Amino acid sequence: MKKPLILVTNDDGIVSKGIRELVDVVKEIGEVVVVAPDSPQSAKGHAITITDPIRIRKVDVFDGIDSYECSGTPVDCVKIARNVVLKNRQIDLCVSGINHGSNASINVIYSGTISAAMEASLEGIKSIGFSLCDFSHQADFSPCIPYAEKIIHWVLENGASPTNLINVNFPKTNDIKGIKICRQAKARWIEDFQEGVNPFGEKYYWLTGKFVNEDAREDADINALDAGFVSVVPVHHNLTHTHTLDHGILEELSKI
Amino acid sequence: MKKPLILVTNDDGIVSKGIRELVDVVKEIGEVVVVAPDSPQSAKGHAITITDPIRIRKVDVFDGIDSYECSGTPVDCVKIARNVVLKNRQIDLCVSGINHGSNASINVIYSGTISAAMEASLEGIKSIGFSLCDFSHQADFSPCIPYAEKIIHWVLENGASPTNLINVNFPKTNDIKGIKICRQAKARWIEDFQEGVNPFGEKYYWLTGKFVNEDAREDADINALDAGFVSVVPVHHNLTHTHTLDHGILEELSKI
Repeated sequence: MKKPLILVTNDDGIVSKGIRELVDVVKEIGEVVVVAPDSPQSAKGHAITITDPIRIRKVDVFDGIDSYECSGTPVDCVKIARNVVLKNRQIDLCVSGINHGSNASINVIYSGTISAAMEASLEGIKSIGFSLCDFSHQADFSPCIPYAEKIIHWVLENGASPTNLINVNFPKTNDIKGIKICRQAKARWIEDFQEGVNPFGEKYYWLTGKFVNEDAREDADINALDAGFVSVVPVHHNLTHTHTLDHGILEELSKI
Repeated sequence: MKKPLILVTNDDGIVSKGIRELVDVVKEIGEVVVVAPDSPQSAKGHAITITDPIRIRKVDVFDGIDSYECSGTPVDCVKIARNVVLKNRQIDLCVSGINHGSNASINVIYSGTISAAMEASLEGIKSIGFSLCDFSHQADFSPCIPYAEKIIHWVLENGASPTNLINVNFPKTNDIKGIKICRQAKARWIEDFQEGVNPFGEKYYWLTGKFVNEDAREDADINALDAGFVSVVPVHHNLTHTHTLDHGILEELSKI
């Protein structure tokens, strides 16, 4: 049987530990091509590079795996992987990550990891964003690996929801309780900016913040993670709030 | 009666024509503060700056209006506006734009304009992203202005849908037919990359593409725009595909 073609990307950059762990998983499953950012691209959301050119460079980072670093964003990586590197060959699966840090709840909209997977899903490619709730560069991914393997096999066989995209987060624990199908928790960041003065005497601001969970539902992804489960959220890219349409809430606005 | 506090931002940069037109509208309606990027930030999606500090600088761009340019992304602008410039004062409305170019359909996920408005909406602020379907730097915004005024007044009074966010696109025409409440059209970009060689002999790729509408519905935003209407789409930030949950499509995955 023909091996599935698997595209691997991430947002932490091609030399991060998380992508290495992910490549180790998928190289046993399919033909693997890696196209990942040449520098950390966390929190780049669905940014693409349109006002500048981008570059790709073949690199020898993963033993025996066809790999390219890209000067663009995570979404750029997926676009150029499809169009230039793979010359529009059919990709059977796109996996993004494993991210160093949670992409549960509202983090999903800021996440380069998920945006890269979403970009592939827009093209009808089964896609999975993987993240571990541990920001450390040296995070221990080993408890996640058996789950990542099982999820990848399942998705290759069954699909990643009708939208082609699932957001998978792993709890930071050696004692994972299983997998739970979840929804994006209602939560938010309460921002703050650390102020400082640069060497030229100019004031700068550095974003910081505190994450606040406002969701008590058991199947909210953060709560599942807190309870030791792997959270799996089916994700889509249709931002229309259909409830508003179905209830005619803006109808008056069409008559002004 | 106290004037509403209105935050203005965009993604084309603080000196673009579109934001100037928008400031001219809102300065008649409320107390206006502008915090906008110091450089073009189109297609930055929901990117935020976390690995570097950002700067803001008070500038005198709009006569008599409190204005700041920011070195960050559109979403950074909203965060720093709330937290640093306005010191967590209650903002009554955030308007973003008027963007030079369409943010209808799938463009919404790439758009810095909409992401900035979405960031404000996450904080419970009524928010509107405005865009004109004309990429030209010298686009003629005059046919849109009476509609922008009416929409802003309506939203201040009635809210911008339960999600606090609407995506407003103006057709490129002098003969606007009215306002239509719409949904995000199913459409996509068929990408291509222009290849070239830089002065150092290195190959580069520059993203280009063709936009393809795959949606025949009359209330799909692109089709309303093509018919000469202003499209208004209620937008939310909950990316969970609830259909998948409601139909238990991933249930098996929780048992592996």
